[in-house]
Amino acid sequence: MDLTSYLTRQRELVEATLDRLVPPATKPPARLHAAMRYSLLGGGKRLRPILVLAAAEAVGGAADPALPFACAMECIHTYSLIHDDLPAMDDDDLRRGRATCHKQFDEATAILAGDALLTLAFELAVRPVEGARPGVTLELITLLAQAAGSAGMVGGQMLDLDAEERAVDLVELQNIHIHKTGALIRAACVAGGQLGGGDAEQIRALKRYGEAIGLSFQITDDILDEVGDARVMGKNTGSDRKKSKATYPFLMGLTRAREEAERLTEAALGFLEPFPAGAEPLRALARFILSRTH
Amino acid sequence: MDLTSYLTRQRELVEATLDRLVPPATKPPARLHAAMRYSLLGGGKRLRPILVLAAAEAVGGAADPALPFACAMECIHTYSLIHDDLPAMDDDDLRRGRATCHKQFDEATAILAGDALLTLAFELAVRPVEGARPGVTLELITLLAQAAGSAGMVGGQMLDLDAEERAVDLVELQNIHIHKTGALIRAACVAGGQLGGGDAEQIRALKRYGEAIGLSFQITDDILDEVGDARVMGKNTGSDRKKSKATYPFLMGLTRAREEAERLTEAALGFLEPFPAGAEPLRALARFILSRTH
Repeated sequence: MDLTSYLTRQRELVEATLDRLVPPATKPPARLHAAMRYSLLGGGKRLRPILVLAAAEAVGGAADPALPFACAMECIHTYSLIHDDLPAMDDDDLRRGRATCHKQFDEATAILAGDALLTLAFELAVRPVEGARPGVTLELITLLAQAAGSAGMVGGQMLDLDAEERAVDLVELQNIHIHKTGALIRAACVAGGQLGGGDAEQIRALKRYGEAIGLSFQITDDILDEVGDARVMGKNTGSDRKKSKATYPFLMGLTRAREEAERLTEAALGFLEPFPAGAEPLRALARFILSRTH
Repeated sequence: MDLTSYLTRQRELVEATLDRLVPPATKPPARLHAAMRYSLLGGGKRLRPILVLAAAEAVGGAADPALPFACAMECIHTYSLIHDDLPAMDDDDLRRGRATCHKQFDEATAILAGDALLTLAFELAVRPVEGARPGVTLELITLLAQAAGSAGMVGGQMLDLDAEERAVDLVELQNIHIHKTGALIRAACVAGGQLGGGDAEQIRALKRYGEAIGLSFQITDDILDEVGDARVMGKNTGSDRKKSKATYPFLMGLTRAREEAERLTEAALGFLEPFPAGAEPLRALARFILSRTH
């Protein structure tokens, strides 16, 4: 399959839907809505929402009814970037190739824009999904809240801050990433499967697929931070090293880190084996994540 | 009725439920959970959750099934205080009689504790409510998200920041407060009515009651900031004046501000006229809010 045109199509679909679902910058409070839109609509891979859509298709469902939930995922991801970039956190100036939200606006506006995007995510996630089994919306809100909260993404960010500037081993690094980035990526795959009407076995496989590509994504991100350049990444590179942050290449060496990402990709593809042809985008996405480091 | 013992009983009920529903500080990430619990369980009037319970009782429902949603309201309120107190926002050191979250922990932890409490609110709000009409949970999550988000509380905070250190008239001040504090107080009353099984007319009356006491609460808060002392308030007073913030006493004078709060309290009591005896706590609460300034 042609992954590039698939990704472009899905990204445009997600961005058009976000544009429609997020209040316009003309609506008061204009500064808040402008900041939300600046960060949300200013580029990005849209990996998480695309995973929701692709997982729905993988179990034979349609992508369209899953769009509001997919957009909720992107709102959560974007809010987490805005808050992570704040001076009190990672203190980054560049994100998705542009000034970070607090640089473009100010710190207070960035804090509030993040808060509003997190809240908006639940407003979008609660929208009734045509054709979905009753009760699925409530289950997905629980899934989203748990993946995003103190037992998931926010917890991972706390673990990451706790680990700063002290020695971290591979087990601890893995634990940070399972929470910080893994929880939301896994939830995207599970949610897509549920919205697409997948059975329990398919949902379990999608969960394990999500866990595998989540870690592979983080390892390749660490590798890119080490060897990539800022123009391609859209954010400052070498920043992990500057902050003495533990990374996979630092702890394992570049070669073994690449091998681990390959192993995880193979595992992810293995979980998809029982799936029909509709899972082709998910398979291509797993390979794509790996290919970023080559 | 004896409001003091009613408030004590309900506050203890809310606090015991919060203590049970929020992860223990021993569970990793321990620092995050400790910060969440520090701010959430460190005192407070518990006005919003008590309004949920009292509104459920006012329409003849039970308070107990409304407890998780009531706690969700308190999570939202507490997160907003943590973020509002941050150096980039109101920069306050004292809250509920103790050091603010970022003073007790640090800024990054406070940002994350707020994020986690906001997320937890939706995890609690989605819990199935025994005996409630189907669909009510989804409606209440929409209500909560809209009251807390850019069209409600967060939007009000943005309007408040926009208005800092410039002249604000009464219409603008009212608009700030309708969003910043009013939206959540109104939502608490509506949600309680819905959880208690109220009919459409009762819900409409509770909404107008909530709007009236929300404004009366803000006016009396402004009066207390002007005339109260820090020991009673549990936060620094005179801070509005120090920041040249517009307040009701500043714009109307103390006497007219008190009269306006009295007028709103009478209106609130008027909306409750058709309600049975179960609405007595709501009536007492409206009078209590007013009495704080005498």
